[in-house]
Amino acid sequence: MIQARISHSLRTGASMAELSEKARSKLNSLNEALESGAMARVRRIINSGLAPVDVAHLIESSPPKARKVIWELVDKGIEGEVLQYLSIDIQSQFLSDMSAEQVVDATADLDSDDIADMLQQLPEQVTQEILSSMDHQDRARVEAILGYPEDSAGGLMNTDTITIRPDITLDVVLRYLRRHQSLPDMTDNLLVVNRQNEFIGALPIRKLLVSDPQQTVREVMSTGRIMVIQATQHETEVAKLFERHDLVSAPVVDANGMLLGRITIDDVVDVIRETADHSLMSMAGLDDDEDTFAPVLKTARRRAVWLGINLITAFIASAVIGLFDKAIEAVVALAVLMPIVASMGGIAGSQVLTLVIRGQALGHLSGANFRWLFHRELLVAALNGGLWAIIIAIMAWVWFNDIKLSLIMSAAIIINLMAAAVVGAALPQILKARGIDPALAGGVILTTVTDVVGFMSFLGLATLIYI
Amino acid sequence: MIQARISHSLRTGASMAELSEKARSKLNSLNEALESGAMARVRRIINSGLAPVDVAHLIESSPPKARKVIWELVDKGIEGEVLQYLSIDIQSQFLSDMSAEQVVDATADLDSDDIADMLQQLPEQVTQEILSSMDHQDRARVEAILGYPEDSAGGLMNTDTITIRPDITLDVVLRYLRRHQSLPDMTDNLLVVNRQNEFIGALPIRKLLVSDPQQTVREVMSTGRIMVIQATQHETEVAKLFERHDLVSAPVVDANGMLLGRITIDDVVDVIRETADHSLMSMAGLDDDEDTFAPVLKTARRRAVWLGINLITAFIASAVIGLFDKAIEAVVALAVLMPIVASMGGIAGSQVLTLVIRGQALGHLSGANFRWLFHRELLVAALNGGLWAIIIAIMAWVWFNDIKLSLIMSAAIIINLMAAAVVGAALPQILKARGIDPALAGGVILTTVTDVVGFMSFLGLATLIYI
Repeated sequence: MIQARISHSLRTGASMAELSEKARSKLNSLNEALESGAMARVRRIINSGLAPVDVAHLIESSPPKARKVIWELVDKGIEGEVLQYLSIDIQSQFLSDMSAEQVVDATADLDSDDIADMLQQLPEQVTQEILSSMDHQDRARVEAILGYPEDSAGGLMNTDTITIRPDITLDVVLRYLRRHQSLPDMTDNLLVVNRQNEFIGALPIRKLLVSDPQQTVREVMSTGRIMVIQATQHETEVAKLFERHDLVSAPVVDANGMLLGRITIDDVVDVIRETADHSLMSMAGLDDDEDTFAPVLKTARRRAVWLGINLITAFIASAVIGLFDKAIEAVVALAVLMPIVASMGGIAGSQVLTLVIRGQALGHLSGANFRWLFHRELLVAALNGGLWAIIIAIMAWVWFNDIKLSLIMSAAIIINLMAAAVVGAALPQILKARGIDPALAGGVILTTVTDVVGFMSFLGLATLIYI
Repeated sequence: MIQARISHSLRTGASMAELSEKARSKLNSLNEALESGAMARVRRIINSGLAPVDVAHLIESSPPKARKVIWELVDKGIEGEVLQYLSIDIQSQFLSDMSAEQVVDATADLDSDDIADMLQQLPEQVTQEILSSMDHQDRARVEAILGYPEDSAGGLMNTDTITIRPDITLDVVLRYLRRHQSLPDMTDNLLVVNRQNEFIGALPIRKLLVSDPQQTVREVMSTGRIMVIQATQHETEVAKLFERHDLVSAPVVDANGMLLGRITIDDVVDVIRETADHSLMSMAGLDDDEDTFAPVLKTARRRAVWLGINLITAFIASAVIGLFDKAIEAVVALAVLMPIVASMGGIAGSQVLTLVIRGQALGHLSGANFRWLFHRELLVAALNGGLWAIIIAIMAWVWFNDIKLSLIMSAAIIINLMAAAVVGAALPQILKARGIDPALAGGVILTTVTDVVGFMSFLGLATLIYI
């Protein structure tokens, strides 16, 4: 019977590709139902067996007003799970409308790390209220996590570990496991601790299943390079470990080696995604957890800051042009051609900048190999500077039939491409060493330099020659 | 004894944070040793118990010449594993220097999907030669994977699945497992198939361990929403499934529901990382698997293409300026201020563009909610246009003391910010619908529009008023 059902669903092709296609069409019909105010239809769509993660996705994909409507129609039974999948902005917005009891009820079935993440969005007083409504064990677990920064291994860990002692036999372990209703998600290792709860090793389930049941845990457990994570390690460091060593879960210990909990790959995947998104979003002056459907005023305010910063750099560039107004008055073609010099520098520089920022994120750059990279970039700039200087000189000559202008343009292009290489390569390293995010500040500083150097070299040379 | 050793390493603090610190310092000393030509030291560093993934990282973090030196010093026993962790560029470079036998020897212990990935780098003839040197079973496995595109679920899957029949008891399953030396990595489910090898369900190890051994597989196996992946699904679709449903592994079937293999989270993490890097790198005209330490000529050639494309857009902008040379001759302040109008448009537009491109990647955008987003962006542009138009007008008036100039500038800023919002929001959707990568082409087209509209509106209005 069961077999028949699954085979049927396979044969009718209800694969996940199509399920996700269905989710997309659901998103469409939901938005239409919301726009036309057909609330009964909205409720039907939401409660038609959508998984909590899909409901969360629908909420994230909806404009602010629709979000509230959907949230109120969500079945109470899955509220907590839906909350857990929402981005921080939306999560804290919904949480702030709930009473302490409502939050405790909604989050009762969640992992302790997810509850801790949510509590971190709330005011201290509300957090305390919620913690005191929890039962003793849950409270202790959540408080253990709240004791660590959100972006540390301690803030990322779960406390739902299954621990065993080293001196029992595997047979006893198997019987012990059978006393559980179910094992925690992503349990690939049982963690071995001594009487003091000190972590001493891991028993992979894979080994437990193929080993002689009469052996003891101590005889079978992994002892080689065990990936033990300190609770204070930064989450990006944890992500690198998981990525490089293909981990599913890893134990977390405190400074004394006491087992605190474990980190699982599903939470690490979120860190990897956020870290990778961070550079992209920062380079445009956006937050990495920027809400795609944030309301107008919030969006306008955040964007205004970035525009203001860039306006300053634009005025600096203009001030440089202003220094050479005599040259422009004499030869108006200078005004026509000057943006080309600035823009080529900006493009070349941002390529180097992006490459170095990604190299930093991947941990590729050290002192010694950076010197090589820096030299390569200078050579590349010289080669491309030479190539494009010739092409641009010819184009300028065809256009304005002025050989002096062509030569000035060539020289300025080469100078600006070299400057772009130096700044694009060195700037991220300098910023990083000073604790400034290169993805956020790098682009602004780079274009300021390439604009200033571009206008200065082009108009400066022109002033020397024409005036 | 074992316990003592691990506790000791914990107490002396050899956590992974410090191991990765060690890797960094190793990278430094290796680079120094290579520069000074101290080959004995280089060999000592490489063979001092570094894991293959760390050796691969050292190679990726080294300039081209040093790479070859390190590669030749790598112990033959771990060559295959090191290869598997290298980026495609470097992998194919090393592979092309090896004979078919060497490749077969080096890759003997690898997963079939990793071998298939490597073979895809090689010329067809060499691939055939290698395949025919493999034993029958391995060959069949690799060929099954090679039959699917590299970026499909079929190209991503492993064939090392443990399958069981539905009608046996869990006790028999446990005894069957004990006959294995070890289970494949990331085995969280045993896959249940019928006599035709048709996939009919999954038995989670978590359930196997807590259930009564006298029950049959059919009684215990998961039957609800099983994530079954079609071999032809795109890898980004697979990554979304893993991310949203917190999977460790998932079965892959063909169009007839026959089990082909399974996909594991470690390979999916690589897809997630590459997809996330893709937008960042593409926006700077770089490849997502761009080699940080590619040689000079290769780098210069690739960069030249991007510079050439951007040069065309720069010349288009210049041509627009050229239309208004009379106005610039009359009022040279126009040349001084015009880059501000263009640059504010470019910055505002790239914020919208980046947000929409990320929204597309996360699957947040549908037809209905896009309309809302588009309207919001217009409103945001109007608000910020108004705000900055006033500020810029005041700054321009202070500078040039010309009220007409200030008004022209204000109008042009508002026009260009509105144009930037329209293009930044609509362009990625249009490009995506036509199968063009918005991250690659979006930025170039956007800045062309904001330059043209910026110069055209500012200089055009000035011509109307001054000339």
